[in-house]
Amino acid sequence: MSAPVDFYFDFASPYGYIAAEQIDALVGRHGRTTVWHAIVFDANFQAQDRIRISAAVMRSDYVQRDAVRTAAFHGVPFKLPSQQGLHTELAARGFHWLDDRHPEQARAWALSVFRAYFVDDRNIATIEVLLELAGAAGVDTDEFSAAIHDGTSRQRLKAEIEMAEARGVFASPFFIVEGERFWDTTRMPQLERWLESGPF
Amino acid sequence: MSAPVDFYFDFASPYGYIAAEQIDALVGRHGRTTVWHAIVFDANFQAQDRIRISAAVMRSDYVQRDAVRTAAFHGVPFKLPSQQGLHTELAARGFHWLDDRHPEQARAWALSVFRAYFVDDRNIATIEVLLELAGAAGVDTDEFSAAIHDGTSRQRLKAEIEMAEARGVFASPFFIVEGERFWDTTRMPQLERWLESGPF
Repeated sequence: MSAPVDFYFDFASPYGYIAAEQIDALVGRHGRTTVWHAIVFDANFQAQDRIRISAAVMRSDYVQRDAVRTAAFHGVPFKLPSQQGLHTELAARGFHWLDDRHPEQARAWALSVFRAYFVDDRNIATIEVLLELAGAAGVDTDEFSAAIHDGTSRQRLKAEIEMAEARGVFASPFFIVEGERFWDTTRMPQLERWLESGPF
Repeated sequence: MSAPVDFYFDFASPYGYIAAEQIDALVGRHGRTTVWHAIVFDANFQAQDRIRISAAVMRSDYVQRDAVRTAAFHGVPFKLPSQQGLHTELAARGFHWLDDRHPEQARAWALSVFRAYFVDDRNIATIEVLLELAGAAGVDTDEFSAAIHDGTSRQRLKAEIEMAEARGVFASPFFIVEGERFWDTTRMPQLERWLESGPF
């Protein structure tokens, strides 16, 4: 059985969203599976390579335009949100809690969170929006709400972030397979070649 | 007549080299021409978007590996130079002096400078190496040497850099066509779609 592809993302990352819409199909074409990891790239994130993509860069005219064009290039619906750089800790906590129990449901919910933010301009930093989307995905919202606010889900996310730091992740989206790191949607063709024919 | 594609690069940039090996063929497939601009992305460069790719990032383990893999992905010969981040002002001055007089020769020389650095591990910060390559490209080396050291070529490069700053260039390689900015070899497929079927 071939190694799965680890997919790291921040729910606030437009490129993370564009990747999320495509990664399972790409990896599936080569008979592999993905493991999704929701991460929060805030100021506390300790990138091993000391690479930090600053919030100023993400707000730059260049990136604003590039995100729109890159989504169009990949055929992914996209609208720049009115509030950028939302803090996504609650969403990330919710993701891992759900993923540990119902991976398929977690993935569907994660995509709905991304679309709520990058298509429908919803504020995914609020618990109300996250719960509404959870309800729509068939999740028990009382249980989900309690879990997101519980210290256990905070610890779970913290461990996930420490693991990402240790593995050399520094931005969203980020892919790792067989120890090889690929950063950005634009390295997805390189990831695909790797899956197709091995190291190069 | 369709607008040409402006191609900005720093001779110290591995991704600039990878792009240089491909850009004329890509653009030519769509009946357009390129204008090459050698730029020096040193600490004085004033990026309009306040985006600065730090030298630490370029020296990171990630980028070191990514450059090798990206070259292999594009089928471009590549060896990580022993000295990275060489200062490329002399090469850039020489390029523009030659380009203003003999554009074809300038391009052939520029490619030979890139290959000297990223394939043969030569020190392209030295005038000796630049002149040797100029001689091999059929350039009058006495005249070329005098021009590189002349204040005029310094002013010429300075104007080129100020133009790049004003147009929103911030890294190498960088492409502009019809006011649209594309950063990085990985945006070349987007550039190609733009040339093929217009804005998206």
